[in-house]
Amino acid sequence: MKTQTILLKNRPEGKPTLSDFEFITEDADLNIHSDEMLLETIYVSVDPYLRGRMSDAKSYVAPFELNKPIHSGVIAKVLKSKNDQFSAGDYVSGMLDWKTKQVSKGDGLLKVDKNKAPLSAYLGILGMTGVTAYCGLTQIGKPKAGETLIVSGAAGAVGSVVGQIGKILGLTVIGIAGTDEKVAMLKSKFGFDAGINYNTTKDMKAAIAKAAPNGVDIYYDNVGGPISDAVLFSINKFARIINCGAISVYNNTETPTGISVQPFLVKNSALMQGFIVSNFEEKFPEAIKHLSEWLAEEKLTYTETIVHGFDNIPKAFIDLFDGKNKGKMVVEI
Amino acid sequence: MKTQTILLKNRPEGKPTLSDFEFITEDADLNIHSDEMLLETIYVSVDPYLRGRMSDAKSYVAPFELNKPIHSGVIAKVLKSKNDQFSAGDYVSGMLDWKTKQVSKGDGLLKVDKNKAPLSAYLGILGMTGVTAYCGLTQIGKPKAGETLIVSGAAGAVGSVVGQIGKILGLTVIGIAGTDEKVAMLKSKFGFDAGINYNTTKDMKAAIAKAAPNGVDIYYDNVGGPISDAVLFSINKFARIINCGAISVYNNTETPTGISVQPFLVKNSALMQGFIVSNFEEKFPEAIKHLSEWLAEEKLTYTETIVHGFDNIPKAFIDLFDGKNKGKMVVEI
Repeated sequence: MKTQTILLKNRPEGKPTLSDFEFITEDADLNIHSDEMLLETIYVSVDPYLRGRMSDAKSYVAPFELNKPIHSGVIAKVLKSKNDQFSAGDYVSGMLDWKTKQVSKGDGLLKVDKNKAPLSAYLGILGMTGVTAYCGLTQIGKPKAGETLIVSGAAGAVGSVVGQIGKILGLTVIGIAGTDEKVAMLKSKFGFDAGINYNTTKDMKAAIAKAAPNGVDIYYDNVGGPISDAVLFSINKFARIINCGAISVYNNTETPTGISVQPFLVKNSALMQGFIVSNFEEKFPEAIKHLSEWLAEEKLTYTETIVHGFDNIPKAFIDLFDGKNKGKMVVEI
Repeated sequence: MKTQTILLKNRPEGKPTLSDFEFITEDADLNIHSDEMLLETIYVSVDPYLRGRMSDAKSYVAPFELNKPIHSGVIAKVLKSKNDQFSAGDYVSGMLDWKTKQVSKGDGLLKVDKNKAPLSAYLGILGMTGVTAYCGLTQIGKPKAGETLIVSGAAGAVGSVVGQIGKILGLTVIGIAGTDEKVAMLKSKFGFDAGINYNTTKDMKAAIAKAAPNGVDIYYDNVGGPISDAVLFSINKFARIINCGAISVYNNTETPTGISVQPFLVKNSALMQGFIVSNFEEKFPEAIKHLSEWLAEEKLTYTETIVHGFDNIPKAFIDLFDGKNKGKMVVEI
């Protein structure tokens, strides 16, 4: 049986290009044995973090191997199954190869219900995006109703969910984003209390202090850098700072680029903690349960950009770096 | 009855001077009423943090008032008592005024046992110094035997206790200090595994990586600044960084002076947390119990500098800023 596969051909220098990827069509052995099942790919998630895995620099996950299939979050349909946990016709989500068809033993795969939410949602708000927002905010942020939450990268896939969960939990929520359009959307679509455009605001310290007159109890930080420096001046005693990403400073960790955070942490008995979502694996069922309920109750909303065709996976990935997506970027096969 | 008192006369600019203090002799009403007791001061603790309270800048404790008595950690003898909790002849420790005699209702005072340890120890290793070391290391650091601990300000009153507790708990302990003499003492007197002199080491990153070949699991940070930046390059996944002090950067929180810590925290799922010891008040009895036992078993040692005479309290305090003390500085009245 034939399957199409996308391999990593070169480690990208700077922005990835189409020539970093190679398509092959294989005559693969797709017969299944005991415990195995045959899967057909339905949706493929493309995410900025994959760029990191294409480099061989030390990071929190091992790099992709050259000339091997790339993998990411995938929704697949079970075509045949000799595995007790899954039946033909089931839909599953999990980390799978960029292949049109593949054989799996089901390790790390979860069944998803297409009647409860659109299948693509399981790659976004009901997948790692939503779970990252939920786990970081609840497990590190430990929110209490009435507190003030600031979110950077607030219009992004994770940030927009963080802010909405904050509102559900009774927080005052302020979002920081990079365009007036995004800031308007924070309030009109996602229900944030206030938004700050960091590109047009001259004095971020003053703008944050004004937006958060009672100070900041929780800062969900997706960006790092000068925005995060400015937030520190408004943190309250026992503030919690969740380091989910530091995109603005990943490429410069050698030279002085920021203020020293330590005096702020000492003075306020504050906490900063980095995480990746897999640290909270035991919380995933709880997270997905709450997110599904809130979605069904229309307390949560989300944006996604759906691109069509297996051949367009690399291009969709590259388009992320030009900001061509709104919310979660997903490829429908 | 007469009592001598030391008042804060001026808010110091830069290093405190003798003219910032005023001695008065009062005819005070030292008769005690119901619940009260009359105390005679035996030892007075002078500490760098008092400098912060002499300014009126926002900090984690309210500033001292001008022309009012200064207070700090004191060991006093109960001369008379109408309080059920304390009897004449008892010794107590707690925050008390810089007075030779004073009346107290006993709020916040603890009885101390002069047969278990020298009375001055209750201002140091069995007082806030030891409790700060114990609570920060155990409550934020959550040490596990076999892990690697780095301590900055390692030869200081807190740092030297942190390292010794680390050894008792089965950690590999590396200390950072500013002179060869101090580094030698870390190993010979306090039992650290290794020491680094930050004043003579050109490449701190390399020196830390060499001293901690398995990486750093816990960093007990008393200083902040470039030393702390260098430690970040060696932290392990799930590292815990305890921000106990940031003396090197307290005076500059406005301009870029350091590397951005966020990428290190994200990549390693690491935690940084500031604290003051009073956050862990419910742990004090446990801390003092362990510290007393370890002291009795000679697993802990300490240095102190004892100055004599009530009149010398301000000078002893000022001498702290010229490094004239070794370990805890205490004035015996």
